Amino acid sequence: MVTRLTNYFLKTLREDPSDAEVISHRLLVRAGYIRRQAPGIFAWLPLGLKVKGKIEQIIRDEMTRAGAHEVHFPALLPREPYEVTGRWDEYGDGLFRLKDRKGSDLLLAPTHEEVFTLLVKDLYSSYKDLPLSIYQIQDKYRDEARPRAGLLRGREFTMKDAYSFDYTDAGLDASYMAQRDAYERIFTRLGLEYVIVQADAGAMGGSRSEEFLHPTPVGEDTFVRSAGGYAANVEAWTTLAPPAIAIEGQAPAEVHDTPNTPTIQTLVDVANAEHPREDGAAWTAADTLKNVVLALNHLDGTRELVIVGLPGDRDVDLKRAEVAFAPAEIEAATEADFAKHPGLVKGYIGPWSENGPVLGEKSATGIRYLLDPRVVDGTSWITGANVDGKHVFGLVAGRDLTADGIADVAEVRAGDPAPDGSGPVELARGMEIGHVFQLGRKYAEALGLKVLDENGKLVTVTMGSYGIGVTRILAIIAELNNDENGLIWPETVAPFDVYVVATGRDAAVFEAAESVVADLEAAGFDVLFDDRPKVSPGVKFGDAELIGIPKIVIAGRGVTDGVVELWDRRTNERTPVPIGEAAATLKAGSKDSQSV
Amino acid sequence: MVTRLTNYFLKTLREDPSDAEVISHRLLVRAGYIRRQAPGIFAWLPLGLKVKGKIEQIIRDEMTRAGAHEVHFPALLPREPYEVTGRWDEYGDGLFRLKDRKGSDLLLAPTHEEVFTLLVKDLYSSYKDLPLSIYQIQDKYRDEARPRAGLLRGREFTMKDAYSFDYTDAGLDASYMAQRDAYERIFTRLGLEYVIVQADAGAMGGSRSEEFLHPTPVGEDTFVRSAGGYAANVEAWTTLAPPAIAIEGQAPAEVHDTPNTPTIQTLVDVANAEHPREDGAAWTAADTLKNVVLALNHLDGTRELVIVGLPGDRDVDLKRAEVAFAPAEIEAATEADFAKHPGLVKGYIGPWSENGPVLGEKSATGIRYLLDPRVVDGTSWITGANVDGKHVFGLVAGRDLTADGIADVAEVRAGDPAPDGSGPVELARGMEIGHVFQLGRKYAEALGLKVLDENGKLVTVTMGSYGIGVTRILAIIAELNNDENGLIWPETVAPFDVYVVATGRDAAVFEAAESVVADLEAAGFDVLFDDRPKVSPGVKFGDAELIGIPKIVIAGRGVTDGVVELWDRRTNERTPVPIGEAAATLKAGSKDSQSV
Repeated sequence: MVTRLTNYFLKTLREDPSDAEVISHRLLVRAGYIRRQAPGIFAWLPLGLKVKGKIEQIIRDEMTRAGAHEVHFPALLPREPYEVTGRWDEYGDGLFRLKDRKGSDLLLAPTHEEVFTLLVKDLYSSYKDLPLSIYQIQDKYRDEARPRAGLLRGREFTMKDAYSFDYTDAGLDASYMAQRDAYERIFTRLGLEYVIVQADAGAMGGSRSEEFLHPTPVGEDTFVRSAGGYAANVEAWTTLAPPAIAIEGQAPAEVHDTPNTPTIQTLVDVANAEHPREDGAAWTAADTLKNVVLALNHLDGTRELVIVGLPGDRDVDLKRAEVAFAPAEIEAATEADFAKHPGLVKGYIGPWSENGPVLGEKSATGIRYLLDPRVVDGTSWITGANVDGKHVFGLVAGRDLTADGIADVAEVRAGDPAPDGSGPVELARGMEIGHVFQLGRKYAEALGLKVLDENGKLVTVTMGSYGIGVTRILAIIAELNNDENGLIWPETVAPFDVYVVATGRDAAVFEAAESVVADLEAAGFDVLFDDRPKVSPGVKFGDAELIGIPKIVIAGRGVTDGVVELWDRRTNERTPVPIGEAAATLKAGSKDSQSV
Repeated sequence: MVTRLTNYFLKTLREDPSDAEVISHRLLVRAGYIRRQAPGIFAWLPLGLKVKGKIEQIIRDEMTRAGAHEVHFPALLPREPYEVTGRWDEYGDGLFRLKDRKGSDLLLAPTHEEVFTLLVKDLYSSYKDLPLSIYQIQDKYRDEARPRAGLLRGREFTMKDAYSFDYTDAGLDASYMAQRDAYERIFTRLGLEYVIVQADAGAMGGSRSEEFLHPTPVGEDTFVRSAGGYAANVEAWTTLAPPAIAIEGQAPAEVHDTPNTPTIQTLVDVANAEHPREDGAAWTAADTLKNVVLALNHLDGTRELVIVGLPGDRDVDLKRAEVAFAPAEIEAATEADFAKHPGLVKGYIGPWSENGPVLGEKSATGIRYLLDPRVVDGTSWITGANVDGKHVFGLVAGRDLTADGIADVAEVRAGDPAPDGSGPVELARGMEIGHVFQLGRKYAEALGLKVLDENGKLVTVTMGSYGIGVTRILAIIAELNNDENGLIWPETVAPFDVYVVATGRDAAVFEAAESVVADLEAAGFDVLFDDRPKVSPGVKFGDAELIGIPKIVIAGRGVTDGVVELWDRRTNERTPVPIGEAAATLKAGSKDSQSV
């Protein structure tokens, strides 16, 4: 097939779009792949639609190989199923809600667990119908607070979402692995390097959850990995608690004057100057117990304060806290919060005073006191004494304080020991490109999806959910494949196989180009032909580079010597070949025979 | 490719869905093609998605042949462009409107003229860029008051909508014909008989407009056609005015007592009894002038009364009136309306009294008086005298009455003369399957789409709009291709090429079926194989008929004699063939080689 630029809907732009923050956004708009319609909402122009279609086809192939069947759900759905699972509220402002002419509540679905569950409930009733994996490639909606970065985080976006249905845990494991394997094949075919990391499973109510991250310093997700093979999203990190220490024989807690020490650093300085360690070593921030007051805004509109005690050398990681306290929204406590609790002395908060424990047992104060997992029994701390200008020294966990529970919300740091014992971890950044998830029975229970097992007994179905953001993947590929002159697509997803440029006004050039184009078409290539008669070579080369089809043929002055040039967009090499051999040479050199 | 029922997402249902009003809805749900999610909103199951994909592919092929380029717009769009063209309001309750988290108004697009216009304005600026035809296949939304009839009129539906852009009227004509020709090819390939009828162009502001109707007695649209080739939707009908008659010499109008004649029939009876015609013939309803009071609810919230005078043997056709008075909504005047206008005497309304004209010149009464085109100068009428129990006889148009204009809103009847002089028309019914439309410059003017012409002068672009309802077409094909046992797909859109049934529990039967399936796959057929081991032949045959793949191969008892049966779903013929020849026989008999 041959498409001619003189008869194509394409306009490349010289200027970057003013709202573009990332390179994929800039280049996809400038090269004529997409066009903005509203914040985070884009139209797909012919070039973009072709790339999107190729990515979708690779995903479809691998879903079919994994035994999944394609269906298609509407974007516009009724409120009720999402009400049953609580997500109508949980999604908060992120959900597009509307009413129809009769006043019924509808939503634009951000994800489809509920209706897939109900569909299977509607149609299936026996273990014989299972296992089942079904998927769709479909446009989804999320009302992002800051839609930006082009397609990387849009308000309308295309996803492949698959769901598996089993009646045993072993079945779910097998369905999960089939999808996980398919994802590995998909990302390999797309040329996307990936790391599979453990991800937070809590918010969706499931058990096993892994993310496919593309490792890149500009990624928005942080993950950790150990040389021994551990890899996890920081949100999924579990802190390894150190062994407990004997309490017996430790000196009693003492309160000391520590005026003007509202920060950890000032406290450490004063402690070293006025109350040095008995062993002669210096106090460090790690010897202090920092008590951070967080406000949780619950879905029911209530606001709750919690205090987290953690080693003074670490900060609370708000993303980890969001996971720990989901679905509540988290923020630092405000002056107004403190005003309601005069017992909390800012800068000097602690779980103990000279009269004994003052936090813990929420019933007494209305505030939960939670501890970092490192604060094990027998550890000794310097911490606030709940009096302005005073701190407790030698406060021993398990003896001097009471906690309402654990809060594993401290930042993870390079060198921290992996929870599986595989050694210290390093921190890295990545972009999420896929997510596989064992939902377990949460949705099936909420919506009543049960089947009869071999013994005629009703059992609740166990599910998995597996997502790839198609439009996000496209943006990531663009983000990774470009240079200062434009895009450089991998062959598997390039909008056309070969780009042919005829330069100059000489009829011989256009005749040679037509001949090459005919040969390429006969060889099965999908060709985009710049046949514009009155455009300068400079503009034509610029467009060829901007558009980024990896194989380019230039018909120029060389045609008088019977040659055209093969231009490799990625290496920038130009190789002259006889006009009649251009197609055969490209055919022989094609890395991926599927694409031609 | 082979798909096995033991590993497929399919459940046929014995019962019709309770809300199904039409056969396509019943069968598509029962046979496992679609599943309802909300009124007028459906999920597509694997079988349905395959049929939909085949229809879309035929449309894509023909759009490409017609030189149109595919793009894809979002469903969720900002209010502003629709505000500029007035359609944000004009759509009334039919538009799904919503707000985002920042309070901006958004809509789910029912059609995309505005944003296609803006896209071209964004990117193109010269006559050299034109002509341009671009299209999308995309999910659209309309909040129908009575979503019913399954996919025939849904609230979410898939459309192919194309738009052409030209800078000359001749260019628009050519672009229009290219789309019109493509539609003829599409419907021919889909096996859908069609009639091309003139359609109302007014509401969209354009000039030429034609609908493709599939003629069927159960169609929801009425159209007329003459033996001489005229065909039009009744909404587009233009009444041929008869020649005027000389006024001079006609007797003056006289008012007669006609008590108890509030209806046309009672009036005709009294006229014949008490005031017979001078020529001895009988008065008929066609001699009376009926004056119908309509209320127009305008978009700005105001309510206007108009009176339409038309021959007493015809009624107002409200659909035609809706077109004539668009975008106002029409209803019959209510008692409250009459109460506000005591001058209107129900049953005796007319344009004249003994003191002269009483209607016409809206400024005098606040009510426009409009006449049917048949009421030409010199025609003489019996009509109300604006006094209870009195009528005027011999009221002559052009002499005794004043009108504010023409209202061509009377019903069209079989035998009416076609407006192009091609003879009397007959009435027929049809289902709309496509619409081609010359929008002209309305959208380009409203949104400022201009290009520089050959002389460097800015000219406004002229546009066309061309629509096919993909999901509606699918339903219509299902509506037309079925019998009491289920669906019977045309080969071009059947979800699979061949359905293979293995009946009984005999291993030899399954071996023979496997052998046929392998041969079919090797021959390039896409096969659905009912390999369920423990299902009775009756259930299997029932499912085969319900699902409706037109070519069925049955492996049954005959395999002991080395034969299977080829079952033609449409003719119900069963032909035994040797096991090894089944695939070749089907290949030879395939009507459409493209489908295999």
